[in-house]
This record gives sequence, structure tokens and C-alpha cells, in this order.
Amino acid sequence: MVNPVGTTEWDESDVTYLRSQARAGTTVDIVSLDHGPVSLEGACYESEAIPGILQQVREGAADHDGILINCFLDPGVVAAREAVDIPVAGPGESGMILATMLGHTFAVLAVAKNLIPRHREQARVLGLESRLASVLSLEIPVVALLEEPGQTVEAALTQARLARDRDGAEVIVLGCTGMATLAQWIKENLDMPVVEPAAAALKMLETWIDLGLTHSRAGLYRRPDFAAILWPQGNQVPGEVSP
Amino acid sequence: MVNPVGTTEWDESDVTYLRSQARAGTTVDIVSLDHGPVSLEGACYESEAIPGILQQVREGAADHDGILINCFLDPGVVAAREAVDIPVAGPGESGMILATMLGHTFAVLAVAKNLIPRHREQARVLGLESRLASVLSLEIPVVALLEEPGQTVEAALTQARLARDRDGAEVIVLGCTGMATLAQWIKENLDMPVVEPAAAALKMLETWIDLGLTHSRAGLYRRPDFAAILWPQGNQVPGEVSP
Amino acid sequence: MVNPVGTTEWDESDVTYLRSQARAGTTVDIVSLDHGPVSLEGACYESEAIPGILQQVREGAADHDGILINCFLDPGVVAAREAVDIPVAGPGESGMILATMLGHTFAVLAVAKNLIPRHREQARVLGLESRLASVLSLEIPVVALLEEPGQTVEAALTQARLARDRDGAEVIVLGCTGMATLAQWIKENLDMPVVEPAAAALKMLETWIDLGLTHSRAGLYRRPDFAAILWPQGNQVPGEVSP
Amino acid sequence: MVNPVGTTEWDESDVTYLRSQARAGTTVDIVSLDHGPVSLEGACYESEAIPGILQQVREGAADHDGILINCFLDPGVVAAREAVDIPVAGPGESGMILATMLGHTFAVLAVAKNLIPRHREQARVLGLESRLASVLSLEIPVVALLEEPGQTVEAALTQARLARDRDGAEVIVLGCTGMATLAQWIKENLDMPVVEPAAAALKMLETWIDLGLTHSRAGLYRRPDFAAILWPQGNQVPGEVSP
Amino acid sequence: MVNPVGTTEWDESDVTYLRSQARAGTTVDIVSLDHGPVSLEGACYESEAIPGILQQVREGAADHDGILINCFLDPGVVAAREAVDIPVAGPGESGMILATMLGHTFAVLAVAKNLIPRHREQARVLGLESRLASVLSLEIPVVALLEEPGQTVEAALTQARLARDRDGAEVIVLGCTGMATLAQWIKENLDMPVVEPAAAALKMLETWIDLGLTHSRAGLYRRPDFAAILWPQGNQVPGEVSP
Amino acid sequence: MVNPVGTTEWDESDVTYLRSQARAGTTVDIVSLDHGPVSLEGACYESEAIPGILQQVREGAADHDGILINCFLDPGVVAAREAVDIPVAGPGESGMILATMLGHTFAVLAVAKNLIPRHREQARVLGLESRLASVLSLEIPVVALLEEPGQTVEAALTQARLARDRDGAEVIVLGCTGMATLAQWIKENLDMPVVEPAAAALKMLETWIDLGLTHSRAGLYRRPDFAAILWPQGNQVPGEVSP
Repeated sequence: MVNPVGTTEWDESDVTYLRSQARAGTTVDIVSLDHGPVSLEGACYESEAIPGILQQVREGAADHDGILINCFLDPGVVAAREAVDIPVAGPGESGMILATMLGHTFAVLAVAKNLIPRHREQARVLGLESRLASVLSLEIPVVALLEEPGQTVEAALTQARLARDRDGAEVIVLGCTGMATLAQWIKENLDMPVVEPAAAALKMLETWIDLGLTHSRAGLYRRPDFAAILWPQGNQVPGEVSP
Repeated sequence: MVNPVGTTEWDESDVTYLRSQARAGTTVDIVSLDHGPVSLEGACYESEAIPGILQQVREGAADHDGILINCFLDPGVVAAREAVDIPVAGPGESGMILATMLGHTFAVLAVAKNLIPRHREQARVLGLESRLASVLSLEIPVVALLEEPGQTVEAALTQARLARDRDGAEVIVLGCTGMATLAQWIKENLDMPVVEPAAAALKMLETWIDLGLTHSRAGLYRRPDFAAILWPQGNQVPGEVSP
Repeated sequence: MVNPVGTTEWDESDVTYLRSQARAGTTVDIVSLDHGPVSLEGACYESEAIPGILQQVREGAADHDGILINCFLDPGVVAAREAVDIPVAGPGESGMILATMLGHTFAVLAVAKNLIPRHREQARVLGLESRLASVLSLEIPVVALLEEPGQTVEAALTQARLARDRDGAEVIVLGCTGMATLAQWIKENLDMPVVEPAAAALKMLETWIDLGLTHSRAGLYRRPDFAAILWPQGNQVPGEVSP
Repeated sequence: MVNPVGTTEWDESDVTYLRSQARAGTTVDIVSLDHGPVSLEGACYESEAIPGILQQVREGAADHDGILINCFLDPGVVAAREAVDIPVAGPGESGMILATMLGHTFAVLAVAKNLIPRHREQARVLGLESRLASVLSLEIPVVALLEEPGQTVEAALTQARLARDRDGAEVIVLGCTGMATLAQWIKENLDMPVVEPAAAALKMLETWIDLGLTHSRAGLYRRPDFAAILWPQGNQVPGEVSP
Repeated sequence: MVNPVGTTEWDESDVTYLRSQARAGTTVDIVSLDHGPVSLEGACYESEAIPGILQQVREGAADHDGILINCFLDPGVVAAREAVDIPVAGPGESGMILATMLGHTFAVLAVAKNLIPRHREQARVLGLESRLASVLSLEIPVVALLEEPGQTVEAALTQARLARDRDGAEVIVLGCTGMATLAQWIKENLDMPVVEPAAAALKMLETWIDLGLTHSRAGLYRRPDFAAILWPQGNQVPGEVSP
Repeated sequence: MVNPVGTTEWDESDVTYLRSQARAGTTVDIVSLDHGPVSLEGACYESEAIPGILQQVREGAADHDGILINCFLDPGVVAAREAVDIPVAGPGESGMILATMLGHTFAVLAVAKNLIPRHREQARVLGLESRLASVLSLEIPVVALLEEPGQTVEAALTQARLARDRDGAEVIVLGCTGMATLAQWIKENLDMPVVEPAAAALKMLETWIDLGLTHSRAGLYRRPDFAAILWPQGNQVPGEVSP
């Protein structure tokens, strides 16, 4: 499990939570980035995080059976699948996929308005836009989600109710891996299934490992030529002899 | 696990296979229908099978944690979710959903040409049509799949190769739960991931049970009023007093 | 015309209505099921009705030119087309298809909230989702539609107005064949075309019979092998000799 | 029935054909344009024809119950619906709509390659693109369709077979109202339903007239202000006083 | 630049505006129709304008490098591209295309409700429906847009705010070339980019001319046979000898 | 213009080419990355390049009017728009957008098979999938495109011909900014418009600058909080006091 942030602050609580969701026999390790953003709330944040994620993924591949990149935006998931042979799961993809089987349409709760189009794009690339009832924003920055828990719960219930009653959503997908504590509140107050995306990703990994499956190399996830990517910095084309 | 056919002929082999796919701690039982078709190869077949499926689902719900309806067409899955509170998985839905994470597009191998539009419709209802590269048919009836295994493997490899090279499919989904033995052949010969749909459905059940999730009652899967459906056969409207 | 319910209670009024919509030269007969649900309000209801529908369809095919299955959910329409060579029409398909030519978008009035996703799926399978402005629910059970006609009209006008003014619907499609009396009310009060789906299905049948057309056998509606479906109940695979 | 061409050459045969498709009680008149193109094979052709079509539609509306514009491109259908209160049918729209009920997918036979995207756009605007298997071109100009009937039949059979076997089409829609004679050939040789679009449009008109339906005025087909369109040619804005 | 109206009233102001948007080296001429509607607010209006537009386009092609048809509905753009070899731009197409690069979704401000489905169809044919947040109507006739400027601005701000806050639009596209003065108001009050479609079309022309590009003749825009379209009015088929 | 590679090898030829496409008054500068991959042929390549791209974009924003990121995959374009207020153009987006106006459908020529799904996803996110006829691969690595020019031209002509004749493409979009020399060959041999994407992006920039437009801050491109992204590496949450 790669926490794609440049702080170890949440490592402990995140790994404890995920271990509680793992089935017997599954061991979960966590690692965060040497440096990177505190949270991921847009493309600039992701851009800074992804090289570090990839490095952790490649290092971790040697002694793990699967990799979970712990952010709903699935930063670096495509690149990670190119890079390693073991399964790589992202909470965004896994959470939305799982939600489709629990009801006709689902809604995603985003942390901020600028992520509404991002989550909509994630659903479009997955092919699931027709199952997405709506994306609604709590307008609470990731790092503040836990600061005023009462307000966070309040905002989540308000938006989830709107999703259900106005947009016809039958399932709620939490749009950030820092929202796990909200699941129980929504389930109890609105009587709807709530998908916590980090746990969903963990289950997808367990599934792939159980079934001996990993991503295809026949197309999108072709193995890259790392020599061409990470060549020495003298700026010659690899293979060229420098005088 | 409900085998939606009116024969016990495949119960033994099917349950043995599925148990081999289950994780430690999962117990798999199988039941087939008191009467019903030998195989499901179209809407007429399904229509005859579904009432019996529903009966088994309702009886089985009392002492199981989840139900798997063992046919790629997912016969009765929507009705079963209406009927019971525990998770219900279908191989078609589960297999296609799982395939989306293993490559950019997948192809489905159907047993017969008339099922090509059916599988396409399944993908459309799921919302996954943009991820479906193609559906190709083996043109071998379900009951004959195992009779001439050499021919079946031959046909499957031919169609899978076409799916990959002509249609750009990166993953193969077996379009019938009687094709499990083909998975290994395709994987080895074409070096592509192959999703066996019954195992996929089993994994989805394990996932939901692990996560304490079940289908939403807020929309599509509303609980029906069985008194209104299965009323006594005197043909009075329920509640009416007949003289 | 097959009334897919296990009661003869509405046979008289339904056939009278449909005869009033038929053109000169068209004769309409009605038959309901020996046993089945009182109304169809979900997949469990349909599942119980379809075998009886198919039986009536197959029996009626001998001496009729076309079959109308009298429920907006089109239960058994695909199976019926597989089973018989004469045209089979469903009110859902016919009503939505007809509506597309009367305005840019149409709305469907459903009887209950759980049918909203069902009607949406019907439109998606038809390929017409982009023409569907919205589906709105009266939240009145089928059997109660006629009990308090004032309330039913009130609810229908409220939802139809919402469809027009909020969702931009230009045409209303009644989402239940028990709503025929609403057509006039909406037309008069809201000045919009209203498609009554049973009459629409009748017209489609008249059209196909006039043009000598029936469904294709080249794909989805391939003729099934009834021997394989409805085999004797000793649970042997057909062709096997039982001792 | 408006023949949207500037010649009376085909009036006789066209009206004879359509009368043979009409049901008892339906009277069919035909009128062509005072001047206009010989055939319609692109947007320039249509542009020249539409003002004449509209004139005939408006004149004909007084003493007819419905209007059929006899070209698969549906030239002027939207404008005609704006202009008059009686139903207006187009062969393209009617033919494609009708085809959806006869099989899972249909193919359109076009006269020329440049009309392939046009027919595809027609299907897209109708919302039916997902039901359209393919559009194939005979590459025979409209006026030549009947000149070498053997070649036309040959080309049509070749393309229809391709549509069925390569593209999975289950129904053929003739993409020009001058192809009526092909229907029988394809039906007999390929055993597929063939929709002749002029007859389809006639049936749609009969349907609407039977049901007392006409297009909605609530949106797309709003009645225009003809005073603003067809104002006197001194080029003043209407209402202005010219000295 | 063709002003597709039968009045010269706006020629002066329109050409002045467009010259202000042109880059150094671009010369803009304007011509309106000999006769035609005052404004274009539906298909009937367009139908009357298009033959005159085509005539101006064909005459103007000789001594210009590109043609701009100055109406958001893009009347005659397809026909014009068939007719001439130089680039032809329409404000609707250009404006929507340009908007996609300025934000995730855009909204179109229409002059009247009946144009909402028209603009939606324009987006659908372009393939951009998934980027279109909404179309909202000012309900002010084109000729009145400038009469009560205060009311027009008020209506535009109200609808643009709704588009942004309710529909999530990030960019506003003015849905009429008579709305240019609104751009500044919306930009300033709502801090969103506003695309003025006539200027957008001009820029597309400049782009194509710079790049030496013009429309493809390989499909939709095939060159028509004008002899077959505009043949002498004796109503003989061209080539026939009249006695 | 940012060349998103870690070599200056192509800076000279690229800037010379782009200057030849610029209109009078436009000045083009080029900068490449301090370190980064030689070419971009997948997500891993992009991931390594994007932080360097962003750095160059932010530095360049001070004294330029617009930024062009010179790779068809549009690496970092979304992030760059978040980061700076001046327009940012990507060749992929610009090229595909421009192609839609030159014909009904376009095809993209990719360098390698694994980029086919990437370009398809780019089109899907743009909303243009319905305009994309196909993506075909030359199977020639970027760095080899110019090594054997004869083979490259041969491969391009073969694929472009296939796109036109088999897939109905009317326009070709070059899927790599290193293919500029191919444009003339295809145009001359196949008589189709060819969009060179770097020039297309340049023209989009000129357009936005002319019109005073830049991307919306209302949604997807919200300005990020760089303090939170690029905080000092002690791994404390910003604002926290470390002892």
C-alpha cells in the first residue's frame, strides 16, 4: 500500500484500517513518499506525487503480491501497471466498479468542486458514466476532513441525501480515502450501501491474487523501456557515445 | 450456488471447481432446479429457468451468506436481489466488471451467434459497452462444449486471437460458465488474461460479505410484495372476499 | 393480446379499449394467465408471469396474426419473438419508439420509484436514452391507479408538468398500460402529445402485418430448441436413454 | 406525399407503389416540386429542394390528414413540423425506427459513399446509433438505380450480405425511396427483414392519424412566425414603415 | 462573411465587430441575402435562408480565402462545404469546439426555448454532448436582443449563473451571433470565459488558411453535381432532349 | 513551447518548424527538460516528464503569452492549466478538435500499439469518440521515425489508406509531434486533409491570445495551493511547528 503523500502522518491509521478490512492471510504494509504533497486535490498535486509513487511501486514489487495506491484519483495506476507484473489497484476504479453491482446508479462524494469533473472523467474512462448519478462536493479540504468531524459528517449526509433524493443515486461512493469514517454514518442515516474505496481496492487485489490474474500486456499496459526513460542525465540519446 | 438447469449432471464438477477457487473459510454448496432446461441459450430458456431459480434463491437465503447464479446470462439476478437481503452475484456482470481492470478492452467468447447481441446488451446495461471490444461466437452448443474438447479449444483460440489482433481486445472473458477449462489454454497460447466468470462471481460475493455490503433497496432492487405476486390461484385480487 | 396477470378482472375493459383503438378490419382478442401476479411492478413479478405469457403466446400464435403483451415492462417480448414467427409487440418499446417522432425528448410516467431505473434501462437497450428527458414516478401502485382517480390525475399532471418545465420533455409516455385514462387529462391540461403504450403496440402490430414484416431470425431472436428447454422431468439430458 | 424533386417523372410509379402499401380507407395523393433537383444526394441538393417542399407542405396541409416527404434524408421534415399542425413523416426516421423492433441491429444501404456519414448522423440525432450496425453504399446514383436493375440487385445483395455476415446486422433498411424493388430480392436471398422506408413512413402517418396524435409544440417544433420569415422583399424589418 | 438574413440592417455593425477581432492581415467583407428572414429562429427560417446563403457562398468563393456564415445555427455550412473548395466556418461549430478547451463543460445561452433541442442536436452531431453542461434560454427574440439591453444583460447573467452554479458549466458559449455585447458583462460579473461564436469562427478560418487546410472531399463533403441540382426549369431530367 | 524530453537534440528543428507555422507577429521560443525521457511512449514516460514540464511552464509563464507542450499525449496540460493563468495548448487536444471541422470522422496515426487505447481515451475525455474513425499504429518507435524515412512514409501511407478505405476516415491526425514531415506525403498521395498537431496547438494559442481568452477557473482548472504541494521536505504538514 503506497500512501501517495510526502508525510508519514497517516500511515499508522491507514494501515490499521486496511488491515481490519483484509481477510485472514492477507498482510498489509504501508509506505509513503520521501517527499510529495500533503494531499492530492488536483493535477498539480498528482504530478508531483507520481514519480515518487512509481519509485515505491517498483521497489515494493519485489516482495509483495499486489500494490494499492491509496488515493481515489488513482494517481500513477496506469504507469504502475506498465512498470510491474503484479496487480495494482486504485481506490477510484475499484470503488466505482464495485458500486455498479450494488444498485442501478451511484454518486461520488468529492472533497472539492474542482474534483467533480475529475471524478466524472474517471467514470467516463472506465466506461461507467451512464451508471454515475452525480458527483457532489463536500467543499472540505482533505487535511480538514478529520479536524471538525461533526461538520464533515453533516456535509456528507446533506450531499448523500441530495444524491439519493434529487439525483436518484442508490449507492454512495466515498470520493477520498480519507473519508472512511463517514461510511457508517451514511449507511445508518440513509439506509444506503456505501463503498469505502480503499477497502474496495484491497478486495480487488485479493481477488486478482486468488485468481492468479494480472493486467494484460497486450495493449494499454505494455511494459516500457526503462533505459529510455531513466537515462543518465548528460542528455544524450541512449546508445550514443559521448566524446 | 444455483445451477440454473433442470439436471444435476454438472453439479458435482461445478461445485468442485468453484471450491478450488474459493478462499480458505468459504464454503460452497450447489443446488440445481427441480425442473428446467438443460442449458440456457436464449430468452426462452431463461424464462423457463427463472421461477425455479427464484425458488432456490429464496430457500437458500436462510442459511447462506451469498448466492451465485451459475450462468453468464445472469438469469434472475435482478429478481433475486429484489427477493433476498444477502448479496447475489451473476457471472456475466462479475466477469465483465472484473475484466475492465485488467486491460483497456475485453472480448466475450459466446457459445452461439444469437447470444452476441445478448452479451452486448448485458454490457450496455452495465454501462460498459465502450470497454467491450467485441463478442465472438464459438458456435458450439453448451452441452457439446465438453464433448469434443479439441474442437472447443481450437474454436476458442481462433476467436480469441481474432479478438486480440483484429478487435484490439486485451482481455478475454469466457461467455459461459461451462468454459472454465478454456482459460488455461488461452492464457498460455495467447498470453492474455482470461476471466472465468463463475470464479469472478464467487470473488465478488466474498468481497461483499467481507465488506458487509449488500445491494441497495433505494431503487431498482426494491423489495417486492410477495403476497401480490404469489397469491392463491382462484384469480381474485388479494384482499377481495370471494363469495 | 395477452394480459400478463393472473386475473381476468381487467380483460373486459382492456379489450374494449384496445378495440376502440384498432382500425377497421383488426380483430382483438384477449387472454390472461391461468395464474400469475395481479400486476407487474418489478423483476420478481415478471419472473412469475413470463412462463404463463410464453404459453399463451405459443398457443395463440396458431390463429392470430400478431401478439401484444399488455405491460409496459415488455415482459417476455424477447422470448416470445424467439418462440413464434408472427410479430410480437410490447407497449414499452412501441410507446417509446413512437414518442421519438413527436418531439425531441419524451418523459415516462412510472407507477413506482423502483421502476425508474427499469424504464431507463428499457430506453438504454432500445438505444433511446438520449431522447429520454426523464422518468418520474406517480408512487401509486398499479391496482390503486383507478381507485382514487382524482388523486391519480393530480399526481400525473404534477409529474408531467415537472417533466415539461424542469426536464424539457416535449412528449409524455404513460409508463403503464393501466394509465390509458390519463392521456386525455394530460393532453388537455398541458397541451402535449401523450403516448398510450398499449395503443402504440397495437399500431405497430398493424403496421408489421400490413407490411408483411416480422422479426429477424438472424441474431437475437433465433428460434430456440424447445425440446431442450421443456424436456420431461426425469432430469436426464435429452437423448439419453433412461433405464 | 411530396416528391421532393423538380420532375414529375416518378410521381406515377411512386404513388402507385404507396397506394399498394396503404390500408383500406387511406387515400394517397402525390405532388412534386415546381422546380428542384432530380434527386437528393447531399446537402446542396436538399437546400435547393426544401423551400419548394415547405411550400407544398403548407399548401397541402389544408386538405390532408398527414404529409409524407418522400426522401430518406428527410429533407424539410423538421421545418414542415414547425409549419403545419398535421403529422409529417420522413422515410429515414420512420424506416430506422421501425427497424429497431425487428432485430437487435440494422444496416442502411446508401446510394453513395458521401451519404454514409449523413445516414449515421440521422441515426445519431434519432438516438439510435447503438442499434445501427453499419451503413454501406451501393455507389449507384439515384437516377441510375433502375437503369441497370441487374447490377443494382447484385450490388444490394453484396452489401446486405456484408452487413449481415461481417457487421452482424439483423435487419436491412433501404436508404433511398427509389430502392423499393430491392426489398423482395434481399428478403428472399438473405432471409432477413427489409424495411422499405416510404411504406414505413406511410404506416407511421396512419398510426398517428388513428391515434389522434401530432408533434409537440412544446419545444423543437414550435410554430414559427411566418410574417418574420417571408416578409416582403424591400428588406425592411417587418413593422418598419418605408417612405 | 455572409449575414444570412434578408436585411442589410446589421451588416455595418457586424463587419465592424468582426474586423476588430481579426488579426493584422485579415480582411473581412460582409454580404447579406437579397431576400430572406430577418432572423433565424428555427428550421423554417433556415430553410428560406439557405438557398440565398449558398448563392452568396458560391459567388464569394472566387475572390475570398474563406467563408463565415454568421449564425449560430450554422445554416448551410454543410452544403457550403460541398459547394466550394475554400474553408467555411460556422459560429455554432467553432464556438462549441473552442469552448471544450477552456473548461471541462460549457453551457450555451439560446435566444428561445425551441432552440434548446437544436443546440443540443448541434452538440450531438459534433460529438460533444458529453461536454455540454446545459442549454438555457433567454426567451428574448433575436431582433429584441438589443432593444432593451438592460433586460438582455439581466437575463443573460441570470441564466449564466444558473449554468455555472446548478449545471456545473465552466465556460459560457453565446448561442447567437447577435449577443456579442454580452460577453464582457458575463466575463466581468461571473469570472468565467465567454466564447463569442462569430469571432471563434473567424479564428478557425484564419487557422485553416494559415495551415493550408480545407475540408475533406473523401466523405460527407463530396462535391455535388450542380448540373443535376440546378437544371433548367422545364422539369426534364438533365441530358434528356426536349422536342 | 516546452519539448517534454530530456534532450535538446530536437529543439532546433522543432522550433524552426513551428516558427514556419506561426503567423506574423508570433514569436516562438523552445525549452526542453533538464532531465527526462528521450520520447514519450506510455504513462511511465509521461510520469517522469511531467514534473519537469510543470517547472518549465511555471518559469516560462512570466514572460510568454501562451504555452505549448509539444507531445501528442498532452502530458501535463491539465496540471499546467491549473498552474498558470496564460493559455496552455496540447497537440493531442488541438489536433483532434481541429480535425472535427474538416470531415465527418478522423483517424489518428499512433507510433505504437499500446498508444491506441491512450489516444482513444484522449478522444473519449474530449467527448469526441463518435468522431474518431480509428487509431492505427505505425509500430515505429518515436526516435526511429526519422531514421528510415522511407519506411516511415510507407507505413504511414498504408495505415492512412486503411483508415480511409476500411474505417471511413475523412481526415488524418498525426499522433506524434515527430511526424510533421508525413503530412505532405499523405495529403499528396491520398488527397485527404492531414492535421499536424503541433501546428494545430500553435494556432489554438494564437486564437486564445487574439480573443483574450484563457481557461476557466470555475472547475477542473482551479488554481492549486502550491504551498501544500511543494512544501519543504521535513515531512511535516505545512503550518505545523517542528521542534
